[in-house]
Amino acid sequence: MKKIGVILGSASDLPKVEKAFSTLDGLGVPYEVHIYSAHRTPVEAKTFAETAADKGFGAIIAAAGKAAHLAGAIAASTVLPVVGLPVSASTLDGIDALLSTVQMPAGIPVATVAIDGAVNAALLCAQIIAVSDAELAEKLRKMRAEATENVLKANREVEAKYNK
Amino acid sequence: MKKIGVILGSASDLPKVEKAFSTLDGLGVPYEVHIYSAHRTPVEAKTFAETAADKGFGAIIAAAGKAAHLAGAIAASTVLPVVGLPVSASTLDGIDALLSTVQMPAGIPVATVAIDGAVNAALLCAQIIAVSDAELAEKLRKMRAEATENVLKANREVEAKYNK
Amino acid sequence: MKKIGVILGSASDLPKVEKAFSTLDGLGVPYEVHIYSAHRTPVEAKTFAETAADKGFGAIIAAAGKAAHLAGAIAASTVLPVVGLPVSASTLDGIDALLSTVQMPAGIPVATVAIDGAVNAALLCAQIIAVSDAELAEKLRKMRAEATENVLKANREVEAKYNK
Amino acid sequence: MKKIGVILGSASDLPKVEKAFSTLDGLGVPYEVHIYSAHRTPVEAKTFAETAADKGFGAIIAAAGKAAHLAGAIAASTVLPVVGLPVSASTLDGIDALLSTVQMPAGIPVATVAIDGAVNAALLCAQIIAVSDAELAEKLRKMRAEATENVLKANREVEAKYNK
Amino acid sequence: MKKIGVILGSASDLPKVEKAFSTLDGLGVPYEVHIYSAHRTPVEAKTFAETAADKGFGAIIAAAGKAAHLAGAIAASTVLPVVGLPVSASTLDGIDALLSTVQMPAGIPVATVAIDGAVNAALLCAQIIAVSDAELAEKLRKMRAEATENVLKANREVEAKYNK
Amino acid sequence: MKKIGVILGSASDLPKVEKAFSTLDGLGVPYEVHIYSAHRTPVEAKTFAETAADKGFGAIIAAAGKAAHLAGAIAASTVLPVVGLPVSASTLDGIDALLSTVQMPAGIPVATVAIDGAVNAALLCAQIIAVSDAELAEKLRKMRAEATENVLKANREVEAKYNK
Amino acid sequence: MKKIGVILGSASDLPKVEKAFSTLDGLGVPYEVHIYSAHRTPVEAKTFAETAADKGFGAIIAAAGKAAHLAGAIAASTVLPVVGLPVSASTLDGIDALLSTVQMPAGIPVATVAIDGAVNAALLCAQIIAVSDAELAEKLRKMRAEATENVLKANREVEAKYNK
Amino acid sequence: MKKIGVILGSASDLPKVEKAFSTLDGLGVPYEVHIYSAHRTPVEAKTFAETAADKGFGAIIAAAGKAAHLAGAIAASTVLPVVGLPVSASTLDGIDALLSTVQMPAGIPVATVAIDGAVNAALLCAQIIAVSDAELAEKLRKMRAEATENVLKANREVEAKYNK
Repeated sequence: MKKIGVILGSASDLPKVEKAFSTLDGLGVPYEVHIYSAHRTPVEAKTFAETAADKGFGAIIAAAGKAAHLAGAIAASTVLPVVGLPVSASTLDGIDALLSTVQMPAGIPVATVAIDGAVNAALLCAQIIAVSDAELAEKLRKMRAEATENVLKANREVEAKYNK
Repeated sequence: MKKIGVILGSASDLPKVEKAFSTLDGLGVPYEVHIYSAHRTPVEAKTFAETAADKGFGAIIAAAGKAAHLAGAIAASTVLPVVGLPVSASTLDGIDALLSTVQMPAGIPVATVAIDGAVNAALLCAQIIAVSDAELAEKLRKMRAEATENVLKANREVEAKYNK
Repeated sequence: MKKIGVILGSASDLPKVEKAFSTLDGLGVPYEVHIYSAHRTPVEAKTFAETAADKGFGAIIAAAGKAAHLAGAIAASTVLPVVGLPVSASTLDGIDALLSTVQMPAGIPVATVAIDGAVNAALLCAQIIAVSDAELAEKLRKMRAEATENVLKANREVEAKYNK
Repeated sequence: MKKIGVILGSASDLPKVEKAFSTLDGLGVPYEVHIYSAHRTPVEAKTFAETAADKGFGAIIAAAGKAAHLAGAIAASTVLPVVGLPVSASTLDGIDALLSTVQMPAGIPVATVAIDGAVNAALLCAQIIAVSDAELAEKLRKMRAEATENVLKANREVEAKYNK
Repeated sequence: MKKIGVILGSASDLPKVEKAFSTLDGLGVPYEVHIYSAHRTPVEAKTFAETAADKGFGAIIAAAGKAAHLAGAIAASTVLPVVGLPVSASTLDGIDALLSTVQMPAGIPVATVAIDGAVNAALLCAQIIAVSDAELAEKLRKMRAEATENVLKANREVEAKYNK
Repeated sequence: MKKIGVILGSASDLPKVEKAFSTLDGLGVPYEVHIYSAHRTPVEAKTFAETAADKGFGAIIAAAGKAAHLAGAIAASTVLPVVGLPVSASTLDGIDALLSTVQMPAGIPVATVAIDGAVNAALLCAQIIAVSDAELAEKLRKMRAEATENVLKANREVEAKYNK
Repeated sequence: MKKIGVILGSASDLPKVEKAFSTLDGLGVPYEVHIYSAHRTPVEAKTFAETAADKGFGAIIAAAGKAAHLAGAIAASTVLPVVGLPVSASTLDGIDALLSTVQMPAGIPVATVAIDGAVNAALLCAQIIAVSDAELAEKLRKMRAEATENVLKANREVEAKYNK
Repeated sequence: MKKIGVILGSASDLPKVEKAFSTLDGLGVPYEVHIYSAHRTPVEAKTFAETAADKGFGAIIAAAGKAAHLAGAIAASTVLPVVGLPVSASTLDGIDALLSTVQMPAGIPVATVAIDGAVNAALLCAQIIAVSDAELAEKLRKMRAEATENVLKANREVEAKYNK
């Protein structure tokens, strides 16, 4: 199966990204984690992006805060789908990271998920891999079914508590 | 090759989405266009999403404005990657559509692109298909190379005009 | 008397919605609580909305956060008045939920109240029922009179403390 | 049938509110239009609100821009449901009117619709009346069915044009 | 000397307004505190405003949060200057109260100060009274001179600590 | 009668400020207009502010756009009330000017009116002068009465047109 | 004298940047204009930045819109001061470009000027060069004096027109 | 070497500015710290700015919150580069300070860094000095290299932990 690359712009973003790891683990999707800064290690970031397809990656998550350029920088050096994960890391609650990630000019798309949306970043990558992996698609559907069951269970508990 | 589904929430959004069609045409990626409203034809939208994978779709663009629920509604009924295209269709310049599209709760990701970013929505879908289609990946790389050449040409013109 | 349906998009929103229950209790307005997710249990949500009028509901509160599609999804499947309660559940303090709830396209209105405004969501439903229920209208007027009396009392205390 | 009161804070808001009239006409819902300013004719506004229920009104639309206090002022003097229609009338594109209308303190709800959402303001009032008027509810359902048919028709046209 | 009326929309705003009292105390400007709600005790608010000039008030502070209508409601019923003090009382950090207070339509001005700017609300009232009270103007200039001296003192301390 | 000083930060703001002149003319309140820039002619601005009280001014309007420092700069050099008029002069529609004008630190208040609210800036100054000028207060009340009459007239026209 | 590099992310930004050229011309500061895209010609952008100091540049203007990464990308590859010029190029009026430019993480500063503030971008570069160029500093002071004189002249005209 | 002037608008901003001191210390760049308020000690602020060049300063940091006029006021009185450091000091998380600092009108630029971006304010000043100081430029490059090494080290740790 193709791997997911999870790139963080800073080690300080790890706590907000870790749920992506457990989500991928839960789906059995292999991944690698790297810290590459768009500004401090641009060469490493670029090299990773340029060689990612050949190294067996199928999608890349780029997580960054503030003026979050990482996802765009990665996306500029690969035609693999790049998922932008805006991290809330300033007084502006992540709206700076969101706009810096999503408002990309025509030509270099970044697939942006919610601020601090690590779980969805992982799921989106899995869904991308699953386009040509029927088994993974089935796992995703099963995970969805479980989520549905959880809501139904919560509903039953709430109904039992509030509706006489 | 897998097809792209382009779903619009309203016919009035067509002028802001049409560049997605020409972009896909330029790449030779097949696509279908449909108008399904999350609120007025929810059944059709849901049915399309549920059957899209079986019908040979590989990714879906959902374009909508204002309280843009379409991408989320489509995404809830398929594990295909869904690209959310927020359209500026109110006095709020698309910030309402952007937040309604990108801030999805954990479990159902939407791959959001820029407000009115139709070209990037199309490119993102092509990149997703290209994960398992080396020929399309090559086309995308060629398109990137041409874009680079266009910037270099614009640069030469500007340099000739301004730098003596 | 017609019942109020209180639908939450997630069990985690319960603490921000519970004041709606006590408000309805205080007015003697019957209600039911359910957890239906626009994205994870769309069928249940739709079925509830489609059958609500026949089951004796007179108005529905839909509470959700982030890209809050729940109220719009419910509203699309019933002509009962749907009250949208945007819940602050992301780093954006509920502005995402507010815009996702209130900026509905023409055709499917959602009666939106303030972010985390559970009391007002309940009162609005009661006022809707009271349009054809003189007794409930009287109770609402009495509750208003009590609120006025509370302000007057607070005023007297403040006047006694600060104005010599 | 109970009437709808449509109150405008200023005659200059008429062009943005007129679609509410045609919407109500289309449903056969009787209405009255008045211009009452929360600040310049507060007595008239208050008197209207206080007597509206006795005069046969079932819901009130209050449309205003900028620091839009009208809906809240009307709502404070009646227990009829008050629909707040924020009008874009300043450089801020209606976000001032939206927040001034929707962020009401606990006790006095305003059922807020989208900025410049005149059609939905009218529909919401009709839905409120229809809670106890089966015939109007049927008309609303029919109107919804027509809207659905319009989307389906637009879809067929788009499919014919784009999908070979 | 003319008095200042300090009107709060809710007793819960007291902690954010109390610095206005000490500021007025420090200047020897008499004041009265009242709790009048624009929505729950509109009659009391209006009566206060209408009679304030005759009762010897020279300016009025109106402090409120959320959809803060109080200052506008007071201002509509008097030609005394009304100082609007937006209070942060919702998840939106007072931006709702600021826009609801400052964006008044032409005809009824509200002299708005910063969010939670109780000291400045008091000073502004004092400055208004001081237009025709040379002694108070002198006190205000003295207070300013003291503030300047405090900055100069802080500067000396900082210079001593950091500049060798 | 005391005069009003109307200070503009730039001649380009004149079209958005001119209604202040006609408003003051209509009330018979004398005024002077000056262009002083907080940044380009800070000495002239400061000198004007420092001497304004002695020269018979009773209040000052300071109109500026973008990072609007003018009102604060003027306010820092006088204890006369300074009315800040934020002008929309950038792509940000005046929200920059509003925040730069209203969010003054404790100690130096600026009485801020709406973005482009020239009429209200003039009225607020007149109200400030009228605190000790019964005749002007009477004129202001008359102007209010006329505005009320205009709303009532507009109401009668609208009622005649829409309510059969 | 050291040169200024003016880098545009796109030829379409030229009309909003051209005033920087005339400003530098007016000061006799040499400059070069280039179009380098952070995403399409990252190598050229990086090479320019890395060699700029050796080629005699003293400061660099980087102008870009939307998710404006250009200034940060340039700044990451040189220790020359980089002036970020956010360009309004999307429906969001440049707020996306402003946040993407100014909210840089610690380590790589970008000296950001106002949205579409081309004149100030040029002046800031000139001021940076002038730190060690007394003649240029004198020219800047003269330009300031002329600007002051222009304001004084505008003031005299306005005074002559409005103050009798 | 030329000195950096670090001016704070208020002693309360010290904790958010102190990292600028350690950054300058680390680079061996001399600096002076002063507290000058744009509003309370405008004369001292102006005098400092006017004499700064002659006293050997090469750049000035001006740090302020809320309606942050300090940087603009300093910039108006010197042609030295002025770095604006917006401080988060109100309920608005520094967006008020950012806009008040960056949106300067043409003629008087302020080199604005991120909200609470003290480190970058210091680095930007050092980069400005380094334009004509090769040794300092070398130190800055070395600091950058260390930062790069830190990212690479963090990357190795993360790779060791997560990638088997």
